[in-house]
Amino acid sequence: MRLRGADQVADLVTAARDGSPRAVARLISLVEDGSPALREVMAALAPHTGHAQVVGLTGAPGVGKSTTTNALVAELRRQHRRVGVLAVDPSSPFSGGALLGDRIRMSDHATDDGVFIRSMASRGHLGGLAWSTPQAVRVLDAAGFDIVLIETVGVGQSEVEIAALADTTLVLLAPGMGDGIQAAKAGILEIGDVYVVNKADRDGASQVSRDLRGMLSLADRREGAWRPPIVKTIAQDGTGLPEVAAAIGHHHDWLVVTGELAARRTRRAREEIEAIALEVLRGRWGSVGRTDEVSALAAAVAAGTSDPYSAADRLLGG
Amino acid sequence: MRLRGADQVADLVTAARDGSPRAVARLISLVEDGSPALREVMAALAPHTGHAQVVGLTGAPGVGKSTTTNALVAELRRQHRRVGVLAVDPSSPFSGGALLGDRIRMSDHATDDGVFIRSMASRGHLGGLAWSTPQAVRVLDAAGFDIVLIETVGVGQSEVEIAALADTTLVLLAPGMGDGIQAAKAGILEIGDVYVVNKADRDGASQVSRDLRGMLSLADRREGAWRPPIVKTIAQDGTGLPEVAAAIGHHHDWLVVTGELAARRTRRAREEIEAIALEVLRGRWGSVGRTDEVSALAAAVAAGTSDPYSAADRLLGG
Repeated sequence: MRLRGADQVADLVTAARDGSPRAVARLISLVEDGSPALREVMAALAPHTGHAQVVGLTGAPGVGKSTTTNALVAELRRQHRRVGVLAVDPSSPFSGGALLGDRIRMSDHATDDGVFIRSMASRGHLGGLAWSTPQAVRVLDAAGFDIVLIETVGVGQSEVEIAALADTTLVLLAPGMGDGIQAAKAGILEIGDVYVVNKADRDGASQVSRDLRGMLSLADRREGAWRPPIVKTIAQDGTGLPEVAAAIGHHHDWLVVTGELAARRTRRAREEIEAIALEVLRGRWGSVGRTDEVSALAAAVAAGTSDPYSAADRLLGG
Repeated sequence: MRLRGADQVADLVTAARDGSPRAVARLISLVEDGSPALREVMAALAPHTGHAQVVGLTGAPGVGKSTTTNALVAELRRQHRRVGVLAVDPSSPFSGGALLGDRIRMSDHATDDGVFIRSMASRGHLGGLAWSTPQAVRVLDAAGFDIVLIETVGVGQSEVEIAALADTTLVLLAPGMGDGIQAAKAGILEIGDVYVVNKADRDGASQVSRDLRGMLSLADRREGAWRPPIVKTIAQDGTGLPEVAAAIGHHHDWLVVTGELAARRTRRAREEIEAIALEVLRGRWGSVGRTDEVSALAAAVAAGTSDPYSAADRLLGG
C-alpha cells in the first residue's frame, strides 16, 4: 500500500480524529515503517498535538507491568478518559515472544473504542524504545486520546528513554525481586514521578515501600519540587488503581502549575529535532555521493592516522 | 594550570610514553575537563594508538566487580603485561560514594608502575559512561598499556555503552542475585564475549552457569561466530583468573583472525566521530549568534505550530 499526495494523509488524519482505530493504526504503521509520507504525516498531525498526557510505565520483569497497565486502563475508562497504549517489546530474541501472553490480557479492552493498544518493536536498541515511539505518541495525541500510556520493560536504558519521553513516569516495584531493587535503584530513583508497589498483599511489600521511602528521602530536592508518592496496589483485583490514577492527575496539575510541562515538552522537542537532524546528516555523511566519507575517516582514526576531533572537523567542513 | 602551544602537549605525550604516571594522569585530566588543548592532545596521541586491547568488565552490584578487576590485574601483571584501569563511577548521588571502599583494594597495585588506575566520573549520564572515557582509553593506549580495563556498574545503559567501547566485554554474574539475572538477561546475553560466574564456591553457582549456558545456546549464532565461554571464579583468592586471562587472549586472537577487531574499531571510530560532530553542531545550534535557533524551533514543535521533521530541516538549512 502506498500513499500519494497530501489528500490521503489529510484524510487519514481526519478519520483518526473522528475515532477510526483503523486510521490510527495506519498512521502508526506509516511512522513505524519510516514511510516516505512520514514528514507529511507529522506536518498534518502537529496542529492537533499537545493535549494528551504522556505517561510512562516501567519496571523490572515480574513486577506485573502488563497487569497494572490493564487495570489502569480500566480505571481511566471508568473516568471516561480515552486511553492509547504503546507497549514497547524488547527486540531481543530471548524475550521477544514472552510478552504475548500478557498482551492477550489486554483483549479485555478489545471491543472498547475508547482504548487503542499497539505493540511497538524496539528495533536497533538493546531493550530500548523504538525511535518511532515519539512519533506514535504524536499520532495518538492528535487522534484525541486523553492519556497515552507507554509500557516498557525496565532494563536500564529504556527507563532513561521513557523518562525523557513521558510527562509522568510511573515506576513499578514488587516484593520478592531480590537484589533487583538494589541493582535498579540508582536509575529508578532519578526517573520516577509516581512509585507503585504492586503485589501489596505479598510478604515484603511494606518493606519495599519503607526502603523506597528511605532512599527517596535522601534525594536532594529543591523547595517546591515534586515529591513522588508511593502507591500500593494489587493490580490483579484493581486495589489501589484509583489512587494511581489520582497520583497521575496530581502530577499533571503540578506540571502545569509550575510550568514544568511546557519546559519538559520543549526539552523533548529539542531532543527530537536534534535526533532527526543527526539522522539526516548521517544519511548525507554515509551517502554514496560522498563515497561514504565518514567510513574513510573512521578507518583513518582506527588506524591512528587521524584522530576523532580532526575527523569530525573534516566531516563538518566538507 | 594552563597549557600553551604544541610543545607542552608533545612533552606530556613523550613523558607518558616514557612511563610517567604523572603525565598519563595529566593527559586524562585534560581530556576529562574538555580542555582547550583537547584537540591537540588527541592529534598528538593518534599515531601511538591501536595497540592496547580494550576490555570492558560489567555486572550488577554485588557480583564482585572490583574484586575481580583487582584479581585480573594481578594475574595480568604475573604475565608482565602493563594494565590501565578506568573505573567508571555512577554519578548518582545515591551510589556515588559507595565504591570508595572497593577502590581502596586497588591500592594493592599502588606501587606497581605497570598498573595505572583512574576513576572516571560519569557526568550527565544515568549510570552511563562518561563521554570522556573513549578519550581516556586513547591516552592509556598511547602510553603503551597492553590492556585497558574499563570497569562499570551494570545498570543497563552502561552495559550497552561498554560493549560499544571495548574489544572484549566480560560480563560478571554471581549466585544469589535473585531475579537480577532474569532482569538483566536480555541485555547481557547480547554483549558478553566472556561470561564470568564469580563466587563459584557459593550455593547456586553451578545453577547460574547452567542457566546461562542454556540461554546462550538459544542465541542465533552464525557459522564461525565467537561462542562466549563461561568461566567460574573465586576472585577473592584468585581461583579461575588465569582462565579468565586466557579467555580474553583467545577472544583477542579470534578478533584479529576474523578481521572483527578492525571492523569493531572502525565502527567505534565512526560513532566517536559522529558524536563529536553532533556536539560541535549542538554548540553551533545553541550558540548566541543564532539566537538559540533550536530553542525557538523546539518551542514551536511543543506548541504544535511546527513538527520535528520540518524543524530539523529548518535547522540544517539555516
